[in-house]
Amino acid sequence: MIKIGLDANGGDFGVNSTVPGAMMAVEKYKDIEIVLYGDEAKIKPLLTNSERITIVDAKDTISMGEEDPFRAVRKGKETSLVKAMTGAKTKEVDAVVTSGPTQAVVMAAHIIVKRLPKIERVALCPLLPNRDGNPRLMLDVGANVELKPEHIGQFAIFATVAAKEILGIDNPKVGYLNIGSEPGKGRLLDKEVYDYLKELNGINFYGNVEGDQLLDCPVDIVVAEGYGGNIALKTAEGTLKAFGGMLKDGIKSSFMAKIGYLFMKKTLKGVIKKVSSSEVGGAMIFGVDSNIVKAHGNSNAYAIMNAIKQARTMVSANIIEKVMEKLPENIEIVEEANKENEA
Amino acid sequence: MIKIGLDANGGDFGVNSTVPGAMMAVEKYKDIEIVLYGDEAKIKPLLTNSERITIVDAKDTISMGEEDPFRAVRKGKETSLVKAMTGAKTKEVDAVVTSGPTQAVVMAAHIIVKRLPKIERVALCPLLPNRDGNPRLMLDVGANVELKPEHIGQFAIFATVAAKEILGIDNPKVGYLNIGSEPGKGRLLDKEVYDYLKELNGINFYGNVEGDQLLDCPVDIVVAEGYGGNIALKTAEGTLKAFGGMLKDGIKSSFMAKIGYLFMKKTLKGVIKKVSSSEVGGAMIFGVDSNIVKAHGNSNAYAIMNAIKQARTMVSANIIEKVMEKLPENIEIVEEANKENEA
Repeated sequence: MIKIGLDANGGDFGVNSTVPGAMMAVEKYKDIEIVLYGDEAKIKPLLTNSERITIVDAKDTISMGEEDPFRAVRKGKETSLVKAMTGAKTKEVDAVVTSGPTQAVVMAAHIIVKRLPKIERVALCPLLPNRDGNPRLMLDVGANVELKPEHIGQFAIFATVAAKEILGIDNPKVGYLNIGSEPGKGRLLDKEVYDYLKELNGINFYGNVEGDQLLDCPVDIVVAEGYGGNIALKTAEGTLKAFGGMLKDGIKSSFMAKIGYLFMKKTLKGVIKKVSSSEVGGAMIFGVDSNIVKAHGNSNAYAIMNAIKQARTMVSANIIEKVMEKLPENIEIVEEANKENEA
Repeated sequence: MIKIGLDANGGDFGVNSTVPGAMMAVEKYKDIEIVLYGDEAKIKPLLTNSERITIVDAKDTISMGEEDPFRAVRKGKETSLVKAMTGAKTKEVDAVVTSGPTQAVVMAAHIIVKRLPKIERVALCPLLPNRDGNPRLMLDVGANVELKPEHIGQFAIFATVAAKEILGIDNPKVGYLNIGSEPGKGRLLDKEVYDYLKELNGINFYGNVEGDQLLDCPVDIVVAEGYGGNIALKTAEGTLKAFGGMLKDGIKSSFMAKIGYLFMKKTLKGVIKKVSSSEVGGAMIFGVDSNIVKAHGNSNAYAIMNAIKQARTMVSANIIEKVMEKLPENIEIVEEANKENEA
């Protein structure tokens, strides 16, 4: 039996999407048990099935707009997120699914579940939408700064295993986000990363990829230094939002366009759905001693079910074990820099 | 009289857009003279007016797809771009307008026109389209890596002067591209840049801006370390292209959407025009001893005329002089790092 913890209070819709999502998942996958961490009084009326379902009462919630996620996690012993992560730490559950606020999730995974041995950095690994309809893996997207080539190598190994097990891609191609496609491009760090990845065993290194290739991507995995990855991901999101806003303004201000919109509505919505990150799957957290899936904040029951499915695959495929086996032994990273980064 | 050099062979359409653009500009602005650097045999038949027009024959062209721009500039003595830049160097012209390949333009400006005293970095400063229709200035977008806070401070001062003179914005707001909005966010460099810009005289510092704000931007000027600026700009371009491509695919595959498109065509094209960088103006080159405007490669005659207008404003407003006056005196930058970067 695979035990999956669900942060039932989390996300924009709380129990109203998480509990129905859990119901769908236990119905569909007979090899899972779900532990619902959340407000028992609110959960109970929504249960349509109590088979392979346990509730761990947690009255508090870390709000989606939390401005100090570090403090919220530290002080949030009664929150559903902290209780779920504690369940992962004590191995009460094999995985955690949450649609809570990203920064709090990464932080809680980091300080409660804790890092795996040999792993120096925890990173968020979202699935990126792509023009061809096949999602790509990308990490890091901002949890870390001041990364070294060895850290990015670890990300590449994790994503290589995850792309095979989650997306079914054999020998996935790994690209490094840089400011030019040729080997010598970028900062000193970028050149070092390129040389390191080129020689790294266990990955299929393609070379550099640039910002304009992200959504029409020649590789299956994009590894990035957290600063560049964050800028790229946010710029892509912001660009889509701004373009969508301009389109809306344009439609509103023209009668002809309004008519056109009626005919094009389905196609437009389809394209928007295709580029919406909530459609392609949950982000995974690399580097901690459990399988954590961060679903989009606005996940509906269906998206929660998919995130549970993803967590189930991570557990049954033994992703953590496979990654640990592939990590190179000869890691020499200054631990001081590491501690500084975590502080 | 303001003397403007035009790289007449440059761009996707060469003399077919540059010469008509020059004709429109001399007609409209009676205080300018234009020196056409380009293939005389091809230029002459296109002249509708020879008043305030001079031709300097240059048979060769640096192609838009040039893979080794450094070599192309070094070896390209007979190219229109190199001849135009040489004209700027010898003060034969007060400004250069070119729609040639970006990297070659930046490189030619750097190695032919040369840097101004007190300036350690040359940077490309494009105008970014924005949701509200008002362009923003952004630099650096990738000409430089390993920048120091003082360099980014110089960019901010240049853009502050340029935003006032070119876009007519009084006291323009300057934002720094970072991976979080709060002061302590980012890498060590980002924190240092924040602290430096906060104290810098002559600019109106707003704080950090993030990737998702670029096209719906709370500031007039975005300064960036070249790595992040390049990733952001390319990601925005690539995202628009991928979204546009998906939309096109969607329209093609649905009869209803095809009908809708007929009604929405004008609105859609308007939005695409609004976000098209070629519409908002040419990129300026900061840091060299002349006024250089790099128009978009696919500039038509109208865009060339606008770029000439922009160069005219740069000259008449004495932008270089104003920037030099505002630069802080106490610049202490390790020249070694500087030289290394240029190599």
